[in-house]
Amino acid sequence: MIQITLPDGSVKEFESGINAIDVAKSISEGLARNVISASFNDQTIETTTPLTTDGSLILYTFNNKEGKKAFWHSSAHVLAQAILDFYPNAKLTIGPAIENGFYYDVDFGDDSISEKDFDKIEKKFLERAREKAEFTMRSVSKADALAYYAERGNQYKVELIEGLEDGDITFCDHSNFTDLCRGGHIPNTGIIKAIKIMNVAGAYWRGDEKNNQLTRVYGISFPKQKDLKEYLELLEEAKKRDHRKLGKELELFTFSQKVGQGLPLWLPKGAALRSRLEDFLKDAQKRAGYEMVMTPHIGQKELYVTSGHYAKYGEDSFQPIHTPKDDEEFLLKPMNCPHHCEVYNFKPYSYKDLPKRFAEFGTVYRYEQSGELHGLTRVRGFTQDDAHIFCTPEQLDQEFKNVIDLVLYVFGSLGFEDFTAQVSIRDMSNPDKYIGDPETWDIAEKAIISAATDKGLNYVIEEGEAAFYGPKLDFMVKDALGRSWQLGTIQVDYNLPKRFDLTYKGADNQLHRPVMIHRAPFGSMERFIAVLLEHTGGNFPLWLTPDQVIILPISEKYQKYTEKVLHLLENSEIRALVDDRNEKTGRKIRDAEVNKIPFMVIVGEKEENEGTVSVRKHGEGDLGTFTIEEFVSLIKNEVNKTIVEFNN
Amino acid sequence: MIQITLPDGSVKEFESGINAIDVAKSISEGLARNVISASFNDQTIETTTPLTTDGSLILYTFNNKEGKKAFWHSSAHVLAQAILDFYPNAKLTIGPAIENGFYYDVDFGDDSISEKDFDKIEKKFLERAREKAEFTMRSVSKADALAYYAERGNQYKVELIEGLEDGDITFCDHSNFTDLCRGGHIPNTGIIKAIKIMNVAGAYWRGDEKNNQLTRVYGISFPKQKDLKEYLELLEEAKKRDHRKLGKELELFTFSQKVGQGLPLWLPKGAALRSRLEDFLKDAQKRAGYEMVMTPHIGQKELYVTSGHYAKYGEDSFQPIHTPKDDEEFLLKPMNCPHHCEVYNFKPYSYKDLPKRFAEFGTVYRYEQSGELHGLTRVRGFTQDDAHIFCTPEQLDQEFKNVIDLVLYVFGSLGFEDFTAQVSIRDMSNPDKYIGDPETWDIAEKAIISAATDKGLNYVIEEGEAAFYGPKLDFMVKDALGRSWQLGTIQVDYNLPKRFDLTYKGADNQLHRPVMIHRAPFGSMERFIAVLLEHTGGNFPLWLTPDQVIILPISEKYQKYTEKVLHLLENSEIRALVDDRNEKTGRKIRDAEVNKIPFMVIVGEKEENEGTVSVRKHGEGDLGTFTIEEFVSLIKNEVNKTIVEFNN
Repeated sequence: MIQITLPDGSVKEFESGINAIDVAKSISEGLARNVISASFNDQTIETTTPLTTDGSLILYTFNNKEGKKAFWHSSAHVLAQAILDFYPNAKLTIGPAIENGFYYDVDFGDDSISEKDFDKIEKKFLERAREKAEFTMRSVSKADALAYYAERGNQYKVELIEGLEDGDITFCDHSNFTDLCRGGHIPNTGIIKAIKIMNVAGAYWRGDEKNNQLTRVYGISFPKQKDLKEYLELLEEAKKRDHRKLGKELELFTFSQKVGQGLPLWLPKGAALRSRLEDFLKDAQKRAGYEMVMTPHIGQKELYVTSGHYAKYGEDSFQPIHTPKDDEEFLLKPMNCPHHCEVYNFKPYSYKDLPKRFAEFGTVYRYEQSGELHGLTRVRGFTQDDAHIFCTPEQLDQEFKNVIDLVLYVFGSLGFEDFTAQVSIRDMSNPDKYIGDPETWDIAEKAIISAATDKGLNYVIEEGEAAFYGPKLDFMVKDALGRSWQLGTIQVDYNLPKRFDLTYKGADNQLHRPVMIHRAPFGSMERFIAVLLEHTGGNFPLWLTPDQVIILPISEKYQKYTEKVLHLLENSEIRALVDDRNEKTGRKIRDAEVNKIPFMVIVGEKEENEGTVSVRKHGEGDLGTFTIEEFVSLIKNEVNKTIVEFNN
Repeated sequence: MIQITLPDGSVKEFESGINAIDVAKSISEGLARNVISASFNDQTIETTTPLTTDGSLILYTFNNKEGKKAFWHSSAHVLAQAILDFYPNAKLTIGPAIENGFYYDVDFGDDSISEKDFDKIEKKFLERAREKAEFTMRSVSKADALAYYAERGNQYKVELIEGLEDGDITFCDHSNFTDLCRGGHIPNTGIIKAIKIMNVAGAYWRGDEKNNQLTRVYGISFPKQKDLKEYLELLEEAKKRDHRKLGKELELFTFSQKVGQGLPLWLPKGAALRSRLEDFLKDAQKRAGYEMVMTPHIGQKELYVTSGHYAKYGEDSFQPIHTPKDDEEFLLKPMNCPHHCEVYNFKPYSYKDLPKRFAEFGTVYRYEQSGELHGLTRVRGFTQDDAHIFCTPEQLDQEFKNVIDLVLYVFGSLGFEDFTAQVSIRDMSNPDKYIGDPETWDIAEKAIISAATDKGLNYVIEEGEAAFYGPKLDFMVKDALGRSWQLGTIQVDYNLPKRFDLTYKGADNQLHRPVMIHRAPFGSMERFIAVLLEHTGGNFPLWLTPDQVIILPISEKYQKYTEKVLHLLENSEIRALVDDRNEKTGRKIRDAEVNKIPFMVIVGEKEENEGTVSVRKHGEGDLGTFTIEEFVSLIKNEVNKTIVEFNN
């Protein structure tokens, strides 16, 4: 008999040799039907692997990340099988599961495939899947493994096997197909009910452009046809909401080849929107006792040698800036903290002066390879809504809680209601990785966890994910399409106060070292606005959106009244514009809808005579006739609804 | 007989051989007494030089720049004479007039002088001056000149003479003193009534640190003792108002050796003040139809090759930033215009869309040698209140006038009432220096001059001072100490629209080239704030000043009432703070005066009982007792008084 511990902590006894599916059956038939993968003592196993020792078992369904991985890894086998059915001379290389689906890199030799071939491969895939073939792992000697692939002329697999230890090599068989494989499959191919080959792309063997070019076939599969349909719809919706597309259509930002890739230019509407976001945070920060500072975008190389950043990141960053006489070296600032430490160092502080909270919308520059750049989410220059709090160790707990309040206020005001948090703490088995004494770390980790608990955050603790200088709390928001984005961050730092020799005079009249908190609720203005664009599909909260109202005069006869309405709205601090093109009103309404302007105001003879406006709301239609005062109130009320209360 | 033309255009006839002083006498005795220097046909002459041809004569007094130059140049001779009286072995090198006074670089050999020697030299100087010795120029052959100084072992003068053409060499004699000299003196030494040796400093011969080190003796002299006294008082006042000193005392900004010289860090009070200035201009710009944009602080080198800046300034600037793979090159942006051109290029425009006015508080970086750096007035990174207007040629005139209105509004609101303007146009004799066709230049120059005239500016026209890409208008403000500062600038540009291929579709449906106006009313935020600090001595206009009110509770018993007062003031958007130190009220008042806080509010038992505050005004004293509502009104009224109306 063996003792199996389940994730809920319960321990069950089974006969040795039982497998994961049978354990699942002992719990419920329903669970057994859904289990597609398992891990035993933290090792991925097959669901059919006999268990012969005591241990911890975790069962995964398609809803788990691990389950999806097994599902998509198994699907890659079936895809390879279907490809070989049509292209028996194709040479397989590697085929991993990825974040969304899987791929297989194939050397098609003289053959090639394109979109027109996808349909037949998908059909063959499903035909093979319906065989309900089981995946069976077996050990193979290195000699036999090499012989197997040498016979088939597959130099790629030969190369892979050459890199493995004899005794560590396994093959996986299902139906008539065999592949070099480490394991981690679903019980049988029959579980895969839907497949979509997404696209093909070129890829070099082992990512090295000196090697052969292969064809990477991307696919995604699901246990239900309905899941695939939903996924494709989501993809379609995501494409419509792509912030790069919306950013251009709404004239928020652009990129210029001449200025350089990854360096956004904010167009008037985008710059104004970003300013409103910044003002919104500035206002909250002022109430929370922050002080704004401004620091330059470069610093002497020495500054980053002091901070330790140069030693760690120097080589992979934008290189130093030399002077004409070559007697000084500067770096583009990759972060604001060293500058803020020098602001702190301007004068001596007593414990009564702390905390000092220095905030800056600080634009930083970090080198990213051009292939890594993506719209506003991966750029080379971005603006952090940065602040550094310098406090006494005793103040850390309360300061941390205050920062959480601020982050929650920001997320709430921007309509992100679904978010999780991650507390990153030390790897206790590797204490040498971290600076600062263990007692201080204990206090800081406990402060973060207690603050996260107190504030009712939905958080997970990740051991070993702390920065070398201190523990941190990251926020992940879920957008309207269910995708997760890492945004705000709060980090505790013991390193920089030491490196910059920051001090304050305590009540004991001795000099002490302050603790530093780095924090950025938005994370970066660029990334945040990108996420907000994709989350809202460009339908920003009314207080934030570029143009709140568009006035559509029925003809140029009403120009004077149009101007009067515009003037009255502007006097009430409402952002309005006029579409005075010589177009039909229907056309103007359609264009305003495309531009996602929340309110359309139609003015014609009736409205002029009555001193009213006819109001349409974006996506909702006609709201009826309003006096201008009523309309202003309508807007003010809508704005107030979206602003959450903040009292720090 | 010869014909002499005077600056007012009048022509007078004199006998050949007459000199400048005698011409002055023919006008008035008073003028003759004050004339100390002259130029004839644009050449500086001695006042005693006989005039033997027709020509234009200008007479200078000490009030002219040219007059001061002759006065101080002559004083350098007398200083050298006095030095030789004490140190006969000292070797003289050069001794020019400078902006304020003059200096002489002297090799004292084994001797040296310091502050304790100043008095005796000054006395000797005045003794020599009282001799009323005339300055007499005479031509010397190169051989004789070399022999004269070789005999005296003065290798410096020998070196200078070796670089001169035989026939071009002149000596100047006065009293027992002779110097190698080009001329330009006052009539006699007796005119110099006051002298002050300011300081001594080391200086290398010919500014080259490989050469001998000399002693630079700085002096200043005046025609009246009273002038010297006033000058020294002004200097004392300027020292008190030095923005570097005030910036530190008022905690506005600092520099850090670690961050790098010439790179200001704005401390909380300074950053807030700067933000208020920016918001003030943003608000005016919004009303004037500007749109804010935001662009990165770097650009590809290619961007500046396109703009032409790289070819012109590349070598003397911060050098290019390389990437880890060294496949791209970037530059710190030295100006915002290329970026704004790319913003313009985001989409096509019709003539109906123009003008486009893109504004940005754009931080730029320009390399300056460390010796050139000075507080906030000469830095390596600064923020321009920049904007670029893209308009049709027909719109240029009106746009230019609108910009002048904006500049006048800014100066008026900040208390600069005394300013002049300079219109910089082409050098007509050197047309190849300029790009763009002459007709367009004509139009632009006329537009600027007509705008300056229309707006009633006190301007001068400087031929040859235009930029190569277009004419410009610069504003010089005079501060409270009478010193002139170049601040705002408005420039017309035909170059960049061409280089960036900017176009708009005209009414004729053809593509046309827009004209570009660069403009910055403040010039740079750093420089403007420095000038404002020195102009106001740190007593900023009430709307701008960091802390408007300081509350001084008489004892901690009134803490609750103090908090109530603070709260009420803050609710009225008044910037207030509390001095709750355990100090006497007198001490608190003195400290508040030092910190230049405009209003002090004293609260004690009487005030708490009556619900009032006792108000003192900075530099004025007690204003009496006010209810809090009355006090808020007082402040609001003062703020409104300093804000000028702006309607564009």
